[in-house]
Amino acid sequence: MGAERKSMIMTNEDKRVIAYHEAGHTLVGLKVPNADPVHKVTIIPRGMALGLTQQLPEGDRFNYTKEYMLGQIAILMGGRIAEEVFLNSITTGASNDIERATELGRSMVCEYGMSDLGPLTFGKKEEQIFLGREIAQHRDFSEDTAIKIDQEVKRIVSEQYARAKHIIEENREAMIRLSETLLERESLDAVQIRRIVSGLPIDDESTPSADEDRPQLKEPSAKPLKPILPPITGSNPATA
Amino acid sequence: MGAERKSMIMTNEDKRVIAYHEAGHTLVGLKVPNADPVHKVTIIPRGMALGLTQQLPEGDRFNYTKEYMLGQIAILMGGRIAEEVFLNSITTGASNDIERATELGRSMVCEYGMSDLGPLTFGKKEEQIFLGREIAQHRDFSEDTAIKIDQEVKRIVSEQYARAKHIIEENREAMIRLSETLLERESLDAVQIRRIVSGLPIDDESTPSADEDRPQLKEPSAKPLKPILPPITGSNPATA
Amino acid sequence: MGAERKSMIMTNEDKRVIAYHEAGHTLVGLKVPNADPVHKVTIIPRGMALGLTQQLPEGDRFNYTKEYMLGQIAILMGGRIAEEVFLNSITTGASNDIERATELGRSMVCEYGMSDLGPLTFGKKEEQIFLGREIAQHRDFSEDTAIKIDQEVKRIVSEQYARAKHIIEENREAMIRLSETLLERESLDAVQIRRIVSGLPIDDESTPSADEDRPQLKEPSAKPLKPILPPITGSNPATA
Amino acid sequence: MGAERKSMIMTNEDKRVIAYHEAGHTLVGLKVPNADPVHKVTIIPRGMALGLTQQLPEGDRFNYTKEYMLGQIAILMGGRIAEEVFLNSITTGASNDIERATELGRSMVCEYGMSDLGPLTFGKKEEQIFLGREIAQHRDFSEDTAIKIDQEVKRIVSEQYARAKHIIEENREAMIRLSETLLERESLDAVQIRRIVSGLPIDDESTPSADEDRPQLKEPSAKPLKPILPPITGSNPATA
Amino acid sequence: MGAERKSMIMTNEDKRVIAYHEAGHTLVGLKVPNADPVHKVTIIPRGMALGLTQQLPEGDRFNYTKEYMLGQIAILMGGRIAEEVFLNSITTGASNDIERATELGRSMVCEYGMSDLGPLTFGKKEEQIFLGREIAQHRDFSEDTAIKIDQEVKRIVSEQYARAKHIIEENREAMIRLSETLLERESLDAVQIRRIVSGLPIDDESTPSADEDRPQLKEPSAKPLKPILPPITGSNPATA
Amino acid sequence: MGAERKSMIMTNEDKRVIAYHEAGHTLVGLKVPNADPVHKVTIIPRGMALGLTQQLPEGDRFNYTKEYMLGQIAILMGGRIAEEVFLNSITTGASNDIERATELGRSMVCEYGMSDLGPLTFGKKEEQIFLGREIAQHRDFSEDTAIKIDQEVKRIVSEQYARAKHIIEENREAMIRLSETLLERESLDAVQIRRIVSGLPIDDESTPSADEDRPQLKEPSAKPLKPILPPITGSNPATA
Repeated sequence: MGAERKSMIMTNEDKRVIAYHEAGHTLVGLKVPNADPVHKVTIIPRGMALGLTQQLPEGDRFNYTKEYMLGQIAILMGGRIAEEVFLNSITTGASNDIERATELGRSMVCEYGMSDLGPLTFGKKEEQIFLGREIAQHRDFSEDTAIKIDQEVKRIVSEQYARAKHIIEENREAMIRLSETLLERESLDAVQIRRIVSGLPIDDESTPSADEDRPQLKEPSAKPLKPILPPITGSNPATA
Repeated sequence: MGAERKSMIMTNEDKRVIAYHEAGHTLVGLKVPNADPVHKVTIIPRGMALGLTQQLPEGDRFNYTKEYMLGQIAILMGGRIAEEVFLNSITTGASNDIERATELGRSMVCEYGMSDLGPLTFGKKEEQIFLGREIAQHRDFSEDTAIKIDQEVKRIVSEQYARAKHIIEENREAMIRLSETLLERESLDAVQIRRIVSGLPIDDESTPSADEDRPQLKEPSAKPLKPILPPITGSNPATA
Repeated sequence: MGAERKSMIMTNEDKRVIAYHEAGHTLVGLKVPNADPVHKVTIIPRGMALGLTQQLPEGDRFNYTKEYMLGQIAILMGGRIAEEVFLNSITTGASNDIERATELGRSMVCEYGMSDLGPLTFGKKEEQIFLGREIAQHRDFSEDTAIKIDQEVKRIVSEQYARAKHIIEENREAMIRLSETLLERESLDAVQIRRIVSGLPIDDESTPSADEDRPQLKEPSAKPLKPILPPITGSNPATA
Repeated sequence: MGAERKSMIMTNEDKRVIAYHEAGHTLVGLKVPNADPVHKVTIIPRGMALGLTQQLPEGDRFNYTKEYMLGQIAILMGGRIAEEVFLNSITTGASNDIERATELGRSMVCEYGMSDLGPLTFGKKEEQIFLGREIAQHRDFSEDTAIKIDQEVKRIVSEQYARAKHIIEENREAMIRLSETLLERESLDAVQIRRIVSGLPIDDESTPSADEDRPQLKEPSAKPLKPILPPITGSNPATA
Repeated sequence: MGAERKSMIMTNEDKRVIAYHEAGHTLVGLKVPNADPVHKVTIIPRGMALGLTQQLPEGDRFNYTKEYMLGQIAILMGGRIAEEVFLNSITTGASNDIERATELGRSMVCEYGMSDLGPLTFGKKEEQIFLGREIAQHRDFSEDTAIKIDQEVKRIVSEQYARAKHIIEENREAMIRLSETLLERESLDAVQIRRIVSGLPIDDESTPSADEDRPQLKEPSAKPLKPILPPITGSNPATA
Repeated sequence: MGAERKSMIMTNEDKRVIAYHEAGHTLVGLKVPNADPVHKVTIIPRGMALGLTQQLPEGDRFNYTKEYMLGQIAILMGGRIAEEVFLNSITTGASNDIERATELGRSMVCEYGMSDLGPLTFGKKEEQIFLGREIAQHRDFSEDTAIKIDQEVKRIVSEQYARAKHIIEENREAMIRLSETLLERESLDAVQIRRIVSGLPIDDESTPSADEDRPQLKEPSAKPLKPILPPITGSNPATA
């Protein structure tokens, strides 16, 4: 996850944007069924990331269901929506989220046969042979099919945007509690998140309050996966 | 086929998805006329594969008929359909199947003149000369023709999807028997498969039950071909 | 032509497909005016080829007429049509034939000004300079023209398909005689072919029957050209 | 910023174009809410730049709001509009401005989900691997989507053009004062700019007039960022 | 011009095609105003060429008029038309002619502003830098313009085809005299050509008949330019 | 400018074409407001150039106005128009002129925001990194926009063609005087050009007639810029 960045001076306004953004991911992550549980949320910058919501699967995952993938798109939308609903503004901070959501939507349509276009694949991956990384999708379909793919991807992402917006608007109080506590404490673990959202006092008095040592209740696996959610980054549109 | 993977911990739910998926391939493979006989089905992971249905031709094959190719597409569809019909969910595990079916459908239209577009070829293979592997289909036709190709490929795959779905729905009982036995035993050979599907006891008491040594009845060739069906793999959409 | 392949075990059904396929080429080759005479037909596999119909020009050819080219396309169609008419099935074995016919049709339209698009060329050959072989047709025309080219190529090939089908259906008896004798003897020379098609006994009793030494009547040139007709090959769609 | 270019002989007419151009950027920069404050404006050529308007953020910026980005586009438009409104002519000097504005508008639509096309990304950046710089946007969408993107980018830039034009026409007197003083003095700092625009005498008599030493009032950061506004350059269309 | 090819055995029919083809170029070349004078015509094969009509400009040429270029296209069409009109057949031998005519027509539209598309250029030549030869036309225009270019090129070539056909049909007697004499003598010089076309005896008795030594009347330049007309070649469609 | 080419033998007709062509550039250059003054016109071939009209700016130029650029296009059109109006023919000699005019028109639309498409840029320059020269315009816009760009470029060039034609037809007498004197003297300087066009005797008797030593009146800069107008060249369409 990289070392924490201490030297960066951030305005309160910037921090507030990040807190609401991450709280948006977190809350949608709690409410969407079958999603990997939210493990941690933080607004302490690390490396390129200004904030981070981390999900942790309950075991090795081998296959992903259509419902799981739709849920991930909804979670990715949660950050931008929180900015919009509570701060009445949208920022460049969601660019990784929407790129990721677009890619997930596109893979559902073009690789996994999970859309109205049916159980076919569209496009071929071209690998860069010497470097072993994919450079481009080779397009082997007609413009007509391209239009239908675009429409399906847009429909999928838009529906999850609406779903995430509904979740956030249904839970305004919890969202504000979560965002403001996150702004104050900077990091929250899975138990604290659940308590705040449920309206309970953040720290259960029967457990020790030491942040690092407290046993994590729901995470059975000691080896955390790479986080599904891209961290919110401080991309500079002026140099993009 | 690679060594068996023992270390992987899989949930029962994951195993169930894989068992029904493979049973879907197997049952359609039994019912489609002129297909290569199903030799074995397993849900023991090997290498990248989480499960495998293996067909074995009854001799060297030199040419493939249109009926054979349509049958292969139907068999490839069987896995996804089984998930849908019995588990009411679809997963990323079918991505190789649908990629393969799309390629078969496309080759019928563009290479083998087996569609309404007639006895012409469409597109030229560009080989990567130094590495000897094909990198792209060179498109030498109009957008108009591209649209017709897409429509034909979609029609072919969709018709085989419907055919496979019909087969599976006509054989619900056999499918459940086959899937649940596979979940229990993890591997089934050609004779066992046929007995289960026919509603007979799985092991004929007149033959020895040793799994490896039992003579294989219908497979005349000692040298198994590369399996036509791609194994079901655990692709991770989060890193795709 | 490569050495004969002896080791390959082929089913009777496969051999029958190949015999009718080659007989189709051969019969159309006999009936189309101005075509290079058929020199030999065989179903003994050599190299990649499972069967072969060989034409031999009556002298050096310098220019090819439009009629000659149309005739070649008809001959190429003969193999697929024979499978369809007599075996009620079509196979992947015709893929080289239809690729070749498509290329001939395209060259008539795009290089030789032999279509309704008039005396112009369309597209530029891009050579791969260091290897001296053409890699792609550079497209220097509009989508509109591309559509017209596709239509013309399709029209040309379809007309020759219909013409070859008519020839084969008009000569059903001769076709069956030719195919069945080929299945039996595996190779036939020009004289034998003509005798069978004419309904005469296959071997004229006044000539010696030694296959290799018998003087070839109509082939004046000792040096056979590369065969115009691509051999029928055993391409495997599963690995294509 | 490069050394000042002294040797270049410029006509008064050329200088006047540059002064009005830079004053246009500056005035719009003052009037647009939430923009980074204008730090300095100069028409002394440095390096390739014939003039320069420099903005300085009030702190590190991590995210950019949609409003900020729209404001930057309006500021970029200010130069061309000033030429048009006051000198009744347009020049090639705005080419960097309009390129920059187009890129900002396109990134809002394609990277940041800030348009009517919704929270999706369009296109993939292709990096030139060995040199680490982006060479092209890989287009992974349909022509239909391309048309919508073009329309949105055009709409965004046109709206900011209209907004900047309105600001400049509402402040004709201030614009003329600012441009003419800039023509005379060649460089103005943030305080002088504000005084001129407000109609006050340019130099507050209570502060020392030394240009370099005067304390800068509103710029808290000692380390100036790279200027957002591209300098106006003397591009030569004859050699372009 | 390469050495004469003596070893090639050509049928009379092939020679007849070539003689009429070359006579077609020659006659149109005589009748089109402002064309470079025809210097020689031959059906003796040299190098790749099976026949050759050679034009020789009356001096260095610096610019080419639109009329000159249209005339060249008509001359190029003359070969194919002669085959069609007199032999009732068209061959692949005209492929270089129609390629050349298409290129001339395209350059009139795209490089020289000599069509209804007006005084603009369309497309940019991409040179292959290291080898110094042009590999492709870079297309920098819309599909709409591409359609108009195709239409103009087709119109230009078709009009010259019609013009050349009219010339040949108006001069049937001369064409037959010219072709048959060429078939007999194999090579004709400028004076002989003019005498034959005019209906005069082929050899003026007042001049010596030695073919090589006879002074050439109208060719002032001793250094022949590269022939404008591509030689007729024996391209083999079967290996194209 | 290269050494004068003495060895080339040119017909009077060719010289006449060049003289009228250059006179066309020169006259339009004199009559278009705000253009760089014409410094010299010559029909003495140098290097690749058969003739040359040279403009010389009155000082360093930093920015170019829209009016200046339109004027340059008109001047470029002047050569072709003079051929058309006075010699009733058009030649390949204008190919550089129309290429240059098309590029200027395109840059006005795509780089400088000087058309109805508004203050946006279209397309990105792709540089060839290792050689530092631009190879292609990267197209990042839709086909729809491409059509609009083509229409604007055509409109711009066509309007300037009409404008230049009007200028030349309004000044027929001056054009003939200028062309014929140029044909006679081969080179004319700025003063001579102005005298001829005004109908005055070519050499003012109060000044010495030595061509090289005569003081040049209006050219303040000793260092001539690279000429804006491409020289007329003798491109050979037969080898293009």
